[in-house]
Amino acid sequence: MTDQDAPAALRFSGIATFMMRPFEPDPNGLDIAIAGVPYDGGVTNRPGARHGPREIRNASSMTRSIHPLTGLDPYALARVGDVGDVPFSAIHDIDAANDDITAFFHRIVSAGAIPLAAGGDHSVSFPILRAVGANRPVGLIHIDAHTDTWDAFHGSKFHHGAPFRRAVEAGVIDPKRTVQIGIRGAQNFTDGWDYSHESGMRVLFMHEVEEIGIDATIAEARRVVGEGPVYLSFDIDALDPVHAPGTGTPEIGGLTTREAQRLVRGLQGLDFVGADLVEVSPPFDHAQITALAGATLMYEILCLLAGRVAARK
Amino acid sequence: MTDQDAPAALRFSGIATFMMRPFEPDPNGLDIAIAGVPYDGGVTNRPGARHGPREIRNASSMTRSIHPLTGLDPYALARVGDVGDVPFSAIHDIDAANDDITAFFHRIVSAGAIPLAAGGDHSVSFPILRAVGANRPVGLIHIDAHTDTWDAFHGSKFHHGAPFRRAVEAGVIDPKRTVQIGIRGAQNFTDGWDYSHESGMRVLFMHEVEEIGIDATIAEARRVVGEGPVYLSFDIDALDPVHAPGTGTPEIGGLTTREAQRLVRGLQGLDFVGADLVEVSPPFDHAQITALAGATLMYEILCLLAGRVAARK
Amino acid sequence: MTDQDAPAALRFSGIATFMMRPFEPDPNGLDIAIAGVPYDGGVTNRPGARHGPREIRNASSMTRSIHPLTGLDPYALARVGDVGDVPFSAIHDIDAANDDITAFFHRIVSAGAIPLAAGGDHSVSFPILRAVGANRPVGLIHIDAHTDTWDAFHGSKFHHGAPFRRAVEAGVIDPKRTVQIGIRGAQNFTDGWDYSHESGMRVLFMHEVEEIGIDATIAEARRVVGEGPVYLSFDIDALDPVHAPGTGTPEIGGLTTREAQRLVRGLQGLDFVGADLVEVSPPFDHAQITALAGATLMYEILCLLAGRVAARK
Amino acid sequence: MTDQDAPAALRFSGIATFMMRPFEPDPNGLDIAIAGVPYDGGVTNRPGARHGPREIRNASSMTRSIHPLTGLDPYALARVGDVGDVPFSAIHDIDAANDDITAFFHRIVSAGAIPLAAGGDHSVSFPILRAVGANRPVGLIHIDAHTDTWDAFHGSKFHHGAPFRRAVEAGVIDPKRTVQIGIRGAQNFTDGWDYSHESGMRVLFMHEVEEIGIDATIAEARRVVGEGPVYLSFDIDALDPVHAPGTGTPEIGGLTTREAQRLVRGLQGLDFVGADLVEVSPPFDHAQITALAGATLMYEILCLLAGRVAARK
Amino acid sequence: MTDQDAPAALRFSGIATFMMRPFEPDPNGLDIAIAGVPYDGGVTNRPGARHGPREIRNASSMTRSIHPLTGLDPYALARVGDVGDVPFSAIHDIDAANDDITAFFHRIVSAGAIPLAAGGDHSVSFPILRAVGANRPVGLIHIDAHTDTWDAFHGSKFHHGAPFRRAVEAGVIDPKRTVQIGIRGAQNFTDGWDYSHESGMRVLFMHEVEEIGIDATIAEARRVVGEGPVYLSFDIDALDPVHAPGTGTPEIGGLTTREAQRLVRGLQGLDFVGADLVEVSPPFDHAQITALAGATLMYEILCLLAGRVAARK
Amino acid sequence: MTDQDAPAALRFSGIATFMMRPFEPDPNGLDIAIAGVPYDGGVTNRPGARHGPREIRNASSMTRSIHPLTGLDPYALARVGDVGDVPFSAIHDIDAANDDITAFFHRIVSAGAIPLAAGGDHSVSFPILRAVGANRPVGLIHIDAHTDTWDAFHGSKFHHGAPFRRAVEAGVIDPKRTVQIGIRGAQNFTDGWDYSHESGMRVLFMHEVEEIGIDATIAEARRVVGEGPVYLSFDIDALDPVHAPGTGTPEIGGLTTREAQRLVRGLQGLDFVGADLVEVSPPFDHAQITALAGATLMYEILCLLAGRVAARK
Repeated sequence: MTDQDAPAALRFSGIATFMMRPFEPDPNGLDIAIAGVPYDGGVTNRPGARHGPREIRNASSMTRSIHPLTGLDPYALARVGDVGDVPFSAIHDIDAANDDITAFFHRIVSAGAIPLAAGGDHSVSFPILRAVGANRPVGLIHIDAHTDTWDAFHGSKFHHGAPFRRAVEAGVIDPKRTVQIGIRGAQNFTDGWDYSHESGMRVLFMHEVEEIGIDATIAEARRVVGEGPVYLSFDIDALDPVHAPGTGTPEIGGLTTREAQRLVRGLQGLDFVGADLVEVSPPFDHAQITALAGATLMYEILCLLAGRVAARK
Repeated sequence: MTDQDAPAALRFSGIATFMMRPFEPDPNGLDIAIAGVPYDGGVTNRPGARHGPREIRNASSMTRSIHPLTGLDPYALARVGDVGDVPFSAIHDIDAANDDITAFFHRIVSAGAIPLAAGGDHSVSFPILRAVGANRPVGLIHIDAHTDTWDAFHGSKFHHGAPFRRAVEAGVIDPKRTVQIGIRGAQNFTDGWDYSHESGMRVLFMHEVEEIGIDATIAEARRVVGEGPVYLSFDIDALDPVHAPGTGTPEIGGLTTREAQRLVRGLQGLDFVGADLVEVSPPFDHAQITALAGATLMYEILCLLAGRVAARK
Repeated sequence: MTDQDAPAALRFSGIATFMMRPFEPDPNGLDIAIAGVPYDGGVTNRPGARHGPREIRNASSMTRSIHPLTGLDPYALARVGDVGDVPFSAIHDIDAANDDITAFFHRIVSAGAIPLAAGGDHSVSFPILRAVGANRPVGLIHIDAHTDTWDAFHGSKFHHGAPFRRAVEAGVIDPKRTVQIGIRGAQNFTDGWDYSHESGMRVLFMHEVEEIGIDATIAEARRVVGEGPVYLSFDIDALDPVHAPGTGTPEIGGLTTREAQRLVRGLQGLDFVGADLVEVSPPFDHAQITALAGATLMYEILCLLAGRVAARK
Repeated sequence: MTDQDAPAALRFSGIATFMMRPFEPDPNGLDIAIAGVPYDGGVTNRPGARHGPREIRNASSMTRSIHPLTGLDPYALARVGDVGDVPFSAIHDIDAANDDITAFFHRIVSAGAIPLAAGGDHSVSFPILRAVGANRPVGLIHIDAHTDTWDAFHGSKFHHGAPFRRAVEAGVIDPKRTVQIGIRGAQNFTDGWDYSHESGMRVLFMHEVEEIGIDATIAEARRVVGEGPVYLSFDIDALDPVHAPGTGTPEIGGLTTREAQRLVRGLQGLDFVGADLVEVSPPFDHAQITALAGATLMYEILCLLAGRVAARK
Repeated sequence: MTDQDAPAALRFSGIATFMMRPFEPDPNGLDIAIAGVPYDGGVTNRPGARHGPREIRNASSMTRSIHPLTGLDPYALARVGDVGDVPFSAIHDIDAANDDITAFFHRIVSAGAIPLAAGGDHSVSFPILRAVGANRPVGLIHIDAHTDTWDAFHGSKFHHGAPFRRAVEAGVIDPKRTVQIGIRGAQNFTDGWDYSHESGMRVLFMHEVEEIGIDATIAEARRVVGEGPVYLSFDIDALDPVHAPGTGTPEIGGLTTREAQRLVRGLQGLDFVGADLVEVSPPFDHAQITALAGATLMYEILCLLAGRVAARK
Repeated sequence: MTDQDAPAALRFSGIATFMMRPFEPDPNGLDIAIAGVPYDGGVTNRPGARHGPREIRNASSMTRSIHPLTGLDPYALARVGDVGDVPFSAIHDIDAANDDITAFFHRIVSAGAIPLAAGGDHSVSFPILRAVGANRPVGLIHIDAHTDTWDAFHGSKFHHGAPFRRAVEAGVIDPKRTVQIGIRGAQNFTDGWDYSHESGMRVLFMHEVEEIGIDATIAEARRVVGEGPVYLSFDIDALDPVHAPGTGTPEIGGLTTREAQRLVRGLQGLDFVGADLVEVSPPFDHAQITALAGATLMYEILCLLAGRVAARK
């Protein structure tokens, strides 16, 4: 148990857990397990995402339970707990770190809980997907400024620009059931863009999202992923830098939080088997803007996951 | 008189008064009295709004006189002065603080001036309305992320989430002539939302504003408040946190300043009897973003009030 | 248990508890109970100390166990836990808040644990002392820029400039066994200075500390409090504002952290029955400077308390 | 040469030049010469734009080469170099500073390179235009919150609110081929607005841009400037203060970076003979938000200039 | 009168004047006239000191009246008022700005008041001294990291590194009665150091101050200036950058505020005819550290001036 | 050549190189080669030191040439150039990164230049020492809060707490000629302290430095390293966090910049063969405090190196 009785609790009080939920290191008994992945060894530019889980926990005290649009209360629908952070055994070894992450999430999945991860840089999505997609490839809704399907950089295959290429190669996601939303910014090479297209992913560049609007984007995302199990990966740099200055590779011209909320809300009813929100880098944040956006979007994602839990029951 | 001759004055120079207006502690002789209410004893989360009046004064030097859309110059239409801050006698006693506020604004109203207040947290709106609505309930246009119609919290009836419930109970606002715009964010209880609806207020949640647009929102607001006297209360957290990080209970997915300007401009011609702009909390601001937004929106509101003064003359 | 195995743990990882200690809501079984008091309803100037406990918890992950000068490991000498924050029932009512604090610390004291509190503003020391000094007045070592022995301000007896006057009146501290260290800054009235002197407290103004040096200050403090039970209250504004910008009433010309460490270390061996570190106000902090200073000084104080525990065993 | 081999280079590494281009003090041999103008002696409010070139250089490392919408790579189309900063001989004398700027850009123009300048305050546009428009008046696309066609302020004709009035008088721009986009904010006098209108400029106030949309704004801009040589001047305060807090005269209600990117992209194919991006003031920035927006918009402008170079070849 | 009754006033409340004193634009009737000089046209590096007077006014609310060491209350000894800021007529013309400053201070001196100025950059000291020393050269105690006796820079004789060379040339200070304290930092030329020495000034480099200590420094300063009229000029960059980050030319290894307070206090009893505190540059400050140090040192200087007023009466 | 003619150059102008020196990628012909090592893959807590070289370059423009105490001008004594940053080929592989660093510095040493490195985290000292000490072990003056002689952490031997243990093992430093100054802060294990002592290093804990003073510390350092070749490694966290908030493992109670300057100046005349200044982490800095301290201490170290160059000539 935490030290906080949520309804009457003061938002600035008590030990900071995700959404003021109890700390439950054992995922058994949980429907949804929120986990921190304080790892940024995969970044290629500005570091700091290792500090993400703590600050998201802190800011998440400002989120509450009953959704203003749907009236849905995820905590009434599902047992939700904070299972703590992935424990690392070899923080300077990217392969070992990946294995630690996979093992931790394998334990969550094995316990029958749906994982909701807070990064950490985007490299953490691949080892999480190794756990979530271990038995069959899953569909992917990927909201980001970058396709993250690049190949090795500086000799490393596991950097934060590569997770979804690795995930296709490992057979843990299905590129035909993958949609990438919000992609933008110049690149020095096109091999990431090319890989996404050639593997069969549907790429909605930001300028296309702007042209067709959020509702059509939702429809397209739902069409691509269809009926099967699906994972949601939200890179905070999908948001415009004014909404998410605290991130490693900011790119102007992104989504507003209002658009992001509308987009996430539009995914209700899909068969979600896991999700992550990554790349919140507190050292570059100010006034907790980014951490609060991350925490509130995690609440919105939690509503998707809780909806899935309720539908299964 | 102030030490600044406005047209030639340098914006960074001189003692900071609201809009570089003269300091006029006596409201007699003024058409519009701008007052600070440096009180944040009613907050339930992050404090700091007590520092709002000073920073809004400071940032307001960057506003000027002739409106770019209408050509209206509020200072040519009305005698406008800075009457200083509410003097408090018992800052740690919320009931006594409320009485001090009411007394100060009663003096303004009695002098025949229209008050424009800079908060302070939102709890200050109720004691102001006790002065403004002393003789009859007034209509209310309330722009905010929260309905502020909750009941007692931690045993207090006068916290910053309750002013408009108290105002209905005290008969100083008419809930049938009340519109609430921009409401959003999850809640742990629905009693505030419920009270607004049950008392007859028109609540436009943010998602509804987004659906119908600002022009339709204006039309709806004008329909609700109709012809009689009306008070405007603008909580800076109606703005998205990127436009107003310096506030106590930020909620992502809010209005942009452009939408807020369009919304306020659309209210020209109503029978305004007072207004406030609240919840600017400088300790959480950066680069004066929030204080400048607050000051510029106060200028826009001032144009509404000056329009009313001119129409009466 | 916490989610952190301290020796191998990463300092940026895991749920933030004080000193990465386990969260133990029940003080029974603890020798030393670290508690947060997220209350700033007693401030007379800048608020924000309510956010102190969370940020001190966060920064305290950077402290470790074995003391570089003494080799003492407080966690080897004493069972130390984080008992969470004082739960408040009526946050806007200063008298009720005081009672909640007293009740929480009474429970700690009754369990036989020595309390170490993280404020909150300095008003919290009086209700803590009501618990710690319930059975007999205790001696007091008070390190601060201000004597905090003022009388009522704005009609309130319990503001953050008055706790030690109240504590004398309530018979929970012995003014003859009280020493105040680091006092400085101009005042509009002298009644606080006068009360300290007239009640028999030994007041070492900052200029006197500078003249005689830290070692003589330690000797004087030890002489004043003598053999009996003693409480240590450390207001972070005793430090110079460059060491503690995040505080409510900063005053230039204060102690350095090096002087503060030397001073606290010099108090080893006294019969400590409790301690607090107060007035860390994160909204005014930057780069976690103040929170880290507070956390590290709490570690130094913990070594005093652990020394006392070991001596008793 | 710089110390960076761009494709493999780490974005945080190496000496910061504009867009990680080689430092080429001699413009001969360049198609496009990027230059810094670290001058803010013309401001009337907040200073600091003198620090703009350095911070834009620093942030520009995060831009890359291949455009996500067009696939155009400006560095493949044109030889682009960083020619350093204008060397000033008399920084406290605004007339002398203007002459130094004109001389520096005259050298660039004479070498056959198209200049792309990073300010500095907006006063620098006039001396640049004296070089660019020396032989004939050029058209102007001016994106800004202010018309900058005011007359003397405090006796100075060369302050940052006057460059385009001076440029008309000097015959270096053609007011009939001038469009001003994004103008907003109240003014104490209307003589700037009046001058723009009376001289034949097309002024699109922000509220008109909002009404007609970005695509119609582009069409109107293209109509006004027509076929001849044209200069693009982008004042970062055209952006909303949340996108550009680091500037001297922020004005709420501005363009988003997404709108600005769309607007600039829509100008491809015009006969550009030079461009500037001005008024980035790092002391008021946070988290490099403004510098990154400025650098990325300079990349977009560079694509326009490179398109022009390619078309000429 | 101001809107603040100082003893009961809340420090965060009311229109910000220097030390919460009444705004008195007419110096007649005052013993001490505190004036702002919002000018930074003389800087050679980072600007922003134009914003100094406003932020010092704001921070000065945290100072109070009765001195902790001497018990002296300057407001009981002398009539002290805030006379506002120097009004400038030609802010971009350094010679005209100097004349405006001299005229303003001439009015103060003529009224029989002692001026205490808040800069602005250090160039303002020369035009102030033209007023204060108009009738005879005065002695000078100059506390600074730099001698400010350099010759023309970039063709300007009036930049902020030259005021005391100009003052010697103009015969308004006596170099034989001038002491410079705290000088440090490397230089590209030695002509400033040389001029100070050759003109007869006593220069105490920081390393000498460190060697001999503050008390000997005080004695030396008193010896140099002797019995006659003396002016005190305190450049905030005399303080170490941790105490004064908000300044234009920071230099590590400076005075602490404790040393500065001790130094200023040691000058009581001299025949002060004026003083200034300059180079507070708020855009580079954080957490109001520098503004608070500046305001508190102005309070200490005010005690010197008030002592002089009392002695004359 | 750079674009800056140093004496007349404006400090805020031009492309930022170390100390405004020319960029000279080829070390041949240089006496002293200043190099950046933008690597922080070895940190165990807060990252960000990869951004150190750029920010130190930027801040170093504020340093100048002629020393205020000695009159020595290092640029007159030695040919000094900025050789750029170490180019990395495999940034995510700590062993490969170490090899890249060694190769880069081997090139400098082979060219006959003395290297002065700007980190990067402290792990970079070992690969630099592999180049500098390749032919014989060198003495070491190590100024730091931590001994950095720990063994493997999380399985890595090359993290930033281990470089000097590795250097002893590799025979590139002589532990008997090694002195560590400023060590402080608690630890969870003592194996680093133990290794230093057992290998024969002289460890001056901060409390010992405080007891004996800086002059005795200098004498002791000179005694330990004696006559032979010596390397100086300055970890910015040797400074107190108020002087160096921008670092990865801050520890209160450290050196002031004044003490650090005195300490470094006292080492003049030793046979320096290289030096580094590490652990400046700009994302945690504010107001450039840490970068400026780092740059100015590098200037002081440069004076030591230039003195050595002059002595050899």
